Amino acid sequence: DGYVSLGGGSVMDTAKAANLLATYPDELLAYVNAPVGQAKPVPGPLKPHIACPTTAGTGSETTGVAVVDFKERQIKTGISSKYLRPTLAVVDPETTYSLAPGIIACTGFDILTHAIESFTAIPYNQRQKAASPGLRPPFQGANPFSDIGSLEAIWIGGNYLPRAVNDPSDTEARIQLMFAATLAGQSFGNAGVHIPHAMSYSVAGLNKTYTAKDYEKNDPMVPHGLSVVLGAPAAFKFTAPASHERHMEASMALGADLSDTDPSDSGKLLADTIVNLMKHTHLPSGLREIGYSDNDVPALVKGAWKQQRLLAQSPREISEEDLTRIYQNAMSYW
Amino acid sequence: DGYVSLGGGSVMDTAKAANLLATYPDELLAYVNAPVGQAKPVPGPLKPHIACPTTAGTGSETTGVAVVDFKERQIKTGISSKYLRPTLAVVDPETTYSLAPGIIACTGFDILTHAIESFTAIPYNQRQKAASPGLRPPFQGANPFSDIGSLEAIWIGGNYLPRAVNDPSDTEARIQLMFAATLAGQSFGNAGVHIPHAMSYSVAGLNKTYTAKDYEKNDPMVPHGLSVVLGAPAAFKFTAPASHERHMEASMALGADLSDTDPSDSGKLLADTIVNLMKHTHLPSGLREIGYSDNDVPALVKGAWKQQRLLAQSPREISEEDLTRIYQNAMSYW
Repeated sequence: DGYVSLGGGSVMDTAKAANLLATYPDELLAYVNAPVGQAKPVPGPLKPHIACPTTAGTGSETTGVAVVDFKERQIKTGISSKYLRPTLAVVDPETTYSLAPGIIACTGFDILTHAIESFTAIPYNQRQKAASPGLRPPFQGANPFSDIGSLEAIWIGGNYLPRAVNDPSDTEARIQLMFAATLAGQSFGNAGVHIPHAMSYSVAGLNKTYTAKDYEKNDPMVPHGLSVVLGAPAAFKFTAPASHERHMEASMALGADLSDTDPSDSGKLLADTIVNLMKHTHLPSGLREIGYSDNDVPALVKGAWKQQRLLAQSPREISEEDLTRIYQNAMSYW
Repeated sequence: DGYVSLGGGSVMDTAKAANLLATYPDELLAYVNAPVGQAKPVPGPLKPHIACPTTAGTGSETTGVAVVDFKERQIKTGISSKYLRPTLAVVDPETTYSLAPGIIACTGFDILTHAIESFTAIPYNQRQKAASPGLRPPFQGANPFSDIGSLEAIWIGGNYLPRAVNDPSDTEARIQLMFAATLAGQSFGNAGVHIPHAMSYSVAGLNKTYTAKDYEKNDPMVPHGLSVVLGAPAAFKFTAPASHERHMEASMALGADLSDTDPSDSGKLLADTIVNLMKHTHLPSGLREIGYSDNDVPALVKGAWKQQRLLAQSPREISEEDLTRIYQNAMSYW
């Protein structure tokens, strides 16, 4: 009759894909975003799906996106359709009370990057217009509705993430983060994410040996939120000139002191504020600490460049040379 | 195949009721809220309904409520079911550019009262628990999700309503109010409104002669937003002791200066702030100015007392004696 998923983003996304393939049988790649797949539109409604997240991060319970990891091709991409959105979500923060601090940290930065990228994405009224409403992509750019949820999620993340990581008994912090994950999911589900998420796929895909703190029982893996936030400070320094005002506002929501910063330095302020949060939640200091060197940059860029659907959301036009510099700047933040 | 409604709250609500009665034929009163009607549950999904609001006020495009005016019984009440919620809304602020200032003012205060009542309603976790989730009423009390939209709508209303009323060419103000109407609709649609809305139904129902500015071509009528806001300052003075913090926060969102106010005076501050907005938008000074006197209070109370579904949302328990005093205090604000 339907599907119930109970777990993190991978689990909920697997249920979305299973529901799709059971309802409208085809090869998985048929539905996957181009150029990796054939981007065939999902033909119609699927069976009911009740999604029950057990991490405060993904927001997948609110979105029509299922991420797919093609390990043999070292690339992550996804399927995107409004029909993939779960029918109902049961969002219960108690499921996160037993999570280890390292997992809270990595998933928590997925919330923050969803929210900051949605808030700084190209505005909805500056995008190229679709030929007809039916051809509009699911990601519509930053808009008045998504902005509200984004800012609230940024504020909650900035206030509660360090508390949730450093004091596992602080249930209020975990409750707030679970709420922020859903809010940020609603926001990026219609606004869209951009450069940090585009960069993350090759960071996760090319990893050979790194295992994150509190994930040691798994095979080598860069947790999704970590793979995104390691690129974020360098990426926001690049995007800031497109809208210093929004980058200032994001820093303010994170709790930064704006009084000494000239608006033209908004990118540096936002980068420094995120780096400060990374330090306070005991994350690696950059791509170098998880095993990458300058020699890996061309391969990292090649992988990110394939994420054109996400790069199109950047508020500032980006080239492969720009991406190269951003990865280089993401090697060591301290 | 379905319904398209284009108009204000009355038009959209008529389409909701028509859709219901055509899909599941019965007497209108069968579905109307008790004690006026029999409160029969709507049996299932209706035909598609695309709602297109042309006023910035009602938020009906987002809610599962249809208000019904029983003129012969001098009572307004409604039908409430998630199945009444329109399938889709087309919210285009350009439809409000030609509205006269008096209509902008009355509909604008519907936004503000929706938002302030939702924000000050009894919190979702202080309500009596339903025996099972299926028996929960549509109105769930103030909650973290509704609070976000409520505060944003209060802020927009406080900033843009006087501008929209006093300068008909200020399209930015009208765009913002249209957005706020939808936001406030989403918030009160799940949080619920309380005393001011309960009071409004008899204020509108017992009116014999009053016609509002810019509504002169109609039969005598107290526009909905006006009938609500005339009771609001007195009502919030009564509810404030239940949560001074929330009443202070609502005043702050409206732009009030909090520095000289002791939190224990939050009700007076919120009342004064709303009265100030009423003055700046050229509204009547209280119930007396639209034709009521102290002699009418018992009848007004009798009508409001029937709105138990709304009075149950009050953050402070209320008696008929309390309601009497609130109506008396609403006679003349200046």
